[in-house]
Amino acid sequence: MITIVAKNSIKQGKVEEFRALADKLVTESRKEKGNISYNLYQDVDNCNVLTFIEEWENKDIIKSHNSSKHFTSIIPKLAELQESNSEVNLYKKL
Amino acid sequence: MITIVAKNSIKQGKVEEFRALADKLVTESRKEKGNISYNLYQDVDNCNVLTFIEEWENKDIIKSHNSSKHFTSIIPKLAELQESNSEVNLYKKL
Repeated sequence: MITIVAKNSIKQGKVEEFRALADKLVTESRKEKGNISYNLYQDVDNCNVLTFIEEWENKDIIKSHNSSKHFTSIIPKLAELQESNSEVNLYKKL
Repeated sequence: MITIVAKNSIKQGKVEEFRALADKLVTESRKEKGNISYNLYQDVDNCNVLTFIEEWENKDIIKSHNSSKHFTSIIPKLAELQESNSEVNLYKKL
């Protein structure tokens, strides 16, 4: 199993727009074969930090996710609302 | 519920030492009232990045965790094995 933590700093005033797009990404990603969980979180001390925490069966499944229509269409739109590139880590549980 | 993501960059050659100490912290923290889950993860692309992902019932419980004997004794030892300060975020699920 692979856990992805993808942390995003959103531009001032753009959080609601980011959330609306992210909700679509979450909904579609949860339908994918091999997805275990897919959730969006907000930093309790900084409302402009929104982070996806996702669990996937394996790396091949993530490759397929990264080339899905919802991923390739929504991610560039999310990127436009961010202060900087997402900080993405892929983890295995120890 | 609060989810903590605490990301740590470990000094070269110190990962096993960090893991041994972290295992103690994980074991003791899981015994605490109000802890839902507490796990250590390793970045699949950089073995020197070790991250705790923790779930707690609420912020007061986390305050109590942060003043526990295992936390206050182990965290300074972990810090000595890190390249830099931990990157810690507290999240609520959206």
